Amino acid sequence: MQSFNDLREQFSQHLENYSFPEKPAALYGACRHILSIGGKRIRPVLCLMSADAFAQVNDDVLNSALALELFHNFSLVHDDIMDEADIRRGQPTVHKKYSEPTAILSGDVLNIYTYELLNELSSDRKKEIISVFNQTAIEVCEGQQMDMDFESIVDVKTADYLKMIELKTSVLLAASLKIGAILGNGKQEDLDAIYNFGRYVGLAFQVKDDYLDAYGDESKTGKKVGGDILANKKTIFYCYCTDQDNEELVNKLLEQYNGKADNKVEATKEIYDKLGARDYVYKLKEDYSNKAFAELDKMSLPKESLQPLKELATQLLSREY
Amino acid sequence: MQSFNDLREQFSQHLENYSFPEKPAALYGACRHILSIGGKRIRPVLCLMSADAFAQVNDDVLNSALALELFHNFSLVHDDIMDEADIRRGQPTVHKKYSEPTAILSGDVLNIYTYELLNELSSDRKKEIISVFNQTAIEVCEGQQMDMDFESIVDVKTADYLKMIELKTSVLLAASLKIGAILGNGKQEDLDAIYNFGRYVGLAFQVKDDYLDAYGDESKTGKKVGGDILANKKTIFYCYCTDQDNEELVNKLLEQYNGKADNKVEATKEIYDKLGARDYVYKLKEDYSNKAFAELDKMSLPKESLQPLKELATQLLSREY
Repeated sequence: MQSFNDLREQFSQHLENYSFPEKPAALYGACRHILSIGGKRIRPVLCLMSADAFAQVNDDVLNSALALELFHNFSLVHDDIMDEADIRRGQPTVHKKYSEPTAILSGDVLNIYTYELLNELSSDRKKEIISVFNQTAIEVCEGQQMDMDFESIVDVKTADYLKMIELKTSVLLAASLKIGAILGNGKQEDLDAIYNFGRYVGLAFQVKDDYLDAYGDESKTGKKVGGDILANKKTIFYCYCTDQDNEELVNKLLEQYNGKADNKVEATKEIYDKLGARDYVYKLKEDYSNKAFAELDKMSLPKESLQPLKELATQLLSREY
Repeated sequence: MQSFNDLREQFSQHLENYSFPEKPAALYGACRHILSIGGKRIRPVLCLMSADAFAQVNDDVLNSALALELFHNFSLVHDDIMDEADIRRGQPTVHKKYSEPTAILSGDVLNIYTYELLNELSSDRKKEIISVFNQTAIEVCEGQQMDMDFESIVDVKTADYLKMIELKTSVLLAASLKIGAILGNGKQEDLDAIYNFGRYVGLAFQVKDDYLDAYGDESKTGKKVGGDILANKKTIFYCYCTDQDNEELVNKLLEQYNGKADNKVEATKEIYDKLGARDYVYKLKEDYSNKAFAELDKMSLPKESLQPLKELATQLLSREY
């Protein structure tokens, strides 16, 4: 079994060898810019780890991983336009560095290059891989639309919020693992299990993200507690609270949400506590986390093959930053 | 051989039977909106006509045609954002009717559905079809980027302008014909010829469009002469003139271009005439048109099989409106 870091290095090499045409300079400069900003390359490396657990990393695996990374970067470029974000990982976003039209177009062309990579796969399970990929890509778009829709809905239901984070982020992690497993010729039960493992890890991670924002240790997270509250974000806490049958406290929460009180963070968290949101969210994260590991246990592969994935998930889900 | 109108009807039926999910309502409402605005469905019908000339229209042909139409509509939605266009075919554009984020996202998801249709093709030449499609889609993006880049370039070269219109519009017409021919199991020489036929028809059509805008008969075009001149568009006339080695007249043209003289249209056309642009553009259109028909003549199919395509091209290129 190869480690996360080894496989990440292998993927980085593959990405470095991939190049875009020179012209039009702005179009492909924008593509290079978003890819150069980097990030952890978590999706492609998950694809490699999964393939490595089932069989080995070959050209098809590397190219599928690259397709997943191009797709992810395309979605980042378009999301940054929609979210009017100026900065990503300390660098100007594509629409800031170039222009909005060029950002739209470079996202589009990245998506097309994604499909060209997939079209060149030699696997006889190519159709199945592209089908998983398409289903996932559609879900990512649906998740982003739901997220935008929620901005104008006061009482977003907890179930809808969880569906949104599942679509917007978890399914792509899950699909990355599944595609690696298909290329490793995994059988259906294992494909389902590794997909669900990724899905639950993603959900646990997102829920934890919300949790740490409100209840994290500033000395560990390096961020001020309550950033989401101050930004009026509809987090899992907000959705859970507005779902509760306690008119008085829900109204108090909405007052805080719409106001700019000096003690907004503390007052909001007090309502979270009173409505049981803190416990609910903590347990939800634990629940997703347990479900993730239970999926790994279902799989027919030898335990040691899955060890690197287990370690990665443990690391991701036990982080306090 | 089936006529353009018969095949258009067949395609319309197929499109009507295609449906998007209900939710998220805005995302898929936007997809339905752009498709409902209609248009001549020229690209999918070209695909059907080509397949019909080589063999017959089957499910793969109808689904490839649908993929081409979805792709075209995706590019319209994104182009309208980039061009800040409020109206398309008398209806509000997607970003006007919904929002810019939803327009970006609905274009993205249309593109993904395009690939899902292609992934379901049963043809054993599927890989070749998707490869033609990808190459074309990339070129369409490159053409749109060139078009935007030209806005800030004073002396756009004629050759660059022609390359831009080729990429932005002609290659998709050409690819529609070629994909139909691949599905009809055409041999390589015929695929090349029908592709080039489409490419030349597209070029001739675009050049003619510029020509009619400046020299058309208002009673036939129904539009005031000189719309492009008044909108300061960099047309084939503009590019040809600024390429000429006549400093005095080129400077006069730029003065007109940057100004708002009452007689701007007449004064600009006078410069076109003096620099020989009118003749050049007229001959260029004739040249492309002749090249288009010459490609049809190269093909190994019986003349009568190609008759509907020949008639359609004749009609498109002889129009004076």
